[in-house]
Amino acid sequence: MNIGVIGSGKVGRALGAWLAQAGYPVLFSARDRSHADAAAKDSGCGALAMDTTAVVQRADIVLLALPFTEINSALEPVREHLSGKILVDVTNPITSDHRALSIGHTDSGAEEIAQQFPTANVVKAFNAVFAEVYASQRAKIDGRTITIFYAGDEPQSKASVHTIIAALGFDPVDAGPLENARYLEPLSLLNIRLGRVLGFGTQIGFSLLR
Amino acid sequence: MNIGVIGSGKVGRALGAWLAQAGYPVLFSARDRSHADAAAKDSGCGALAMDTTAVVQRADIVLLALPFTEINSALEPVREHLSGKILVDVTNPITSDHRALSIGHTDSGAEEIAQQFPTANVVKAFNAVFAEVYASQRAKIDGRTITIFYAGDEPQSKASVHTIIAALGFDPVDAGPLENARYLEPLSLLNIRLGRVLGFGTQIGFSLLR
Repeated sequence: MNIGVIGSGKVGRALGAWLAQAGYPVLFSARDRSHADAAAKDSGCGALAMDTTAVVQRADIVLLALPFTEINSALEPVREHLSGKILVDVTNPITSDHRALSIGHTDSGAEEIAQQFPTANVVKAFNAVFAEVYASQRAKIDGRTITIFYAGDEPQSKASVHTIIAALGFDPVDAGPLENARYLEPLSLLNIRLGRVLGFGTQIGFSLLR
Repeated sequence: MNIGVIGSGKVGRALGAWLAQAGYPVLFSARDRSHADAAAKDSGCGALAMDTTAVVQRADIVLLALPFTEINSALEPVREHLSGKILVDVTNPITSDHRALSIGHTDSGAEEIAQQFPTANVVKAFNAVFAEVYASQRAKIDGRTITIFYAGDEPQSKASVHTIIAALGFDPVDAGPLENARYLEPLSLLNIRLGRVLGFGTQIGFSLLR
């Protein structure tokens, strides 16, 4: 299962490297090709950098690890290759000051992506955990496993995303249809407030006790 | 510290009974007085039922455990007694079909309450845990403690709410200013979807790993 990572910022690099080290073939792309090259080199384990078209063509699962506002310009040129692809929406539609969500409780960033690119299978996931956790490659905090919620409408795509979440050692929880991204995106805001403003730092995560 | 509970539905009864059994003087009120009487009787431990005016006059902390849409009509008649009271907003502004939030990411139910009743100190808390958890009087699931997030603008009020959360055995986490209720209210929707729709049941809760 090839995993594409569009965007080579903090989240994309950390998550891509971890997936590569977990044994998945990882393909990076970025608006600035040198960033993708660096991400692939740092990841090792055979991770490659290529242009976004090649990533989307070859990948079974494509992680959208770029700013929400750049998704359309990144995907529009590869629209024809998106049919049936699993797009994992790692982003959050956050205002530029990082203080609020720009898309509301009657909609979500993930749903907007799905509407824009209806032939792809969008799954919301990985959006409420700090890049620093991915960079640390530790799915547990104090011996307890972080839950990663995922939401989507296509069962097979969700199953695949479940598999990669579990492969990293996280606790995957099916949070239902893509519509529920409306509640996963605010969770990331809570995470950001706790970690960056309220003193908990970035090595935090939510666990669903059940 | 007297604790008032306005509303004697599932949440109010369960949380009030638990607080009473934890040693706090608990005062119930309800639109239908017989419901408050029943809640007080079931709680035991000296819990009392009275009208909302008396509850608000006597209580140091008032839990709003009634439907969000009934808050204004419950509090308007006691507006003059609210000055300096700690109002703990346990509610969520949920649409009548329980499928969405009726107030969005640029506002929250808690902030609306604070705006309506500016002399009171509103603290958002207890809103993302099922009544069934309160009824079970277990703050732990599988040996792990459920986190209760609270948000508010007045430090002393927050400290008091922190104290009662801890008294029940929960893990209290300061989630910042009341504005952050915008992110705690969606958390309750996620909780509801997981528990009621996605098969996890009601004995669930979130834990902040750190």
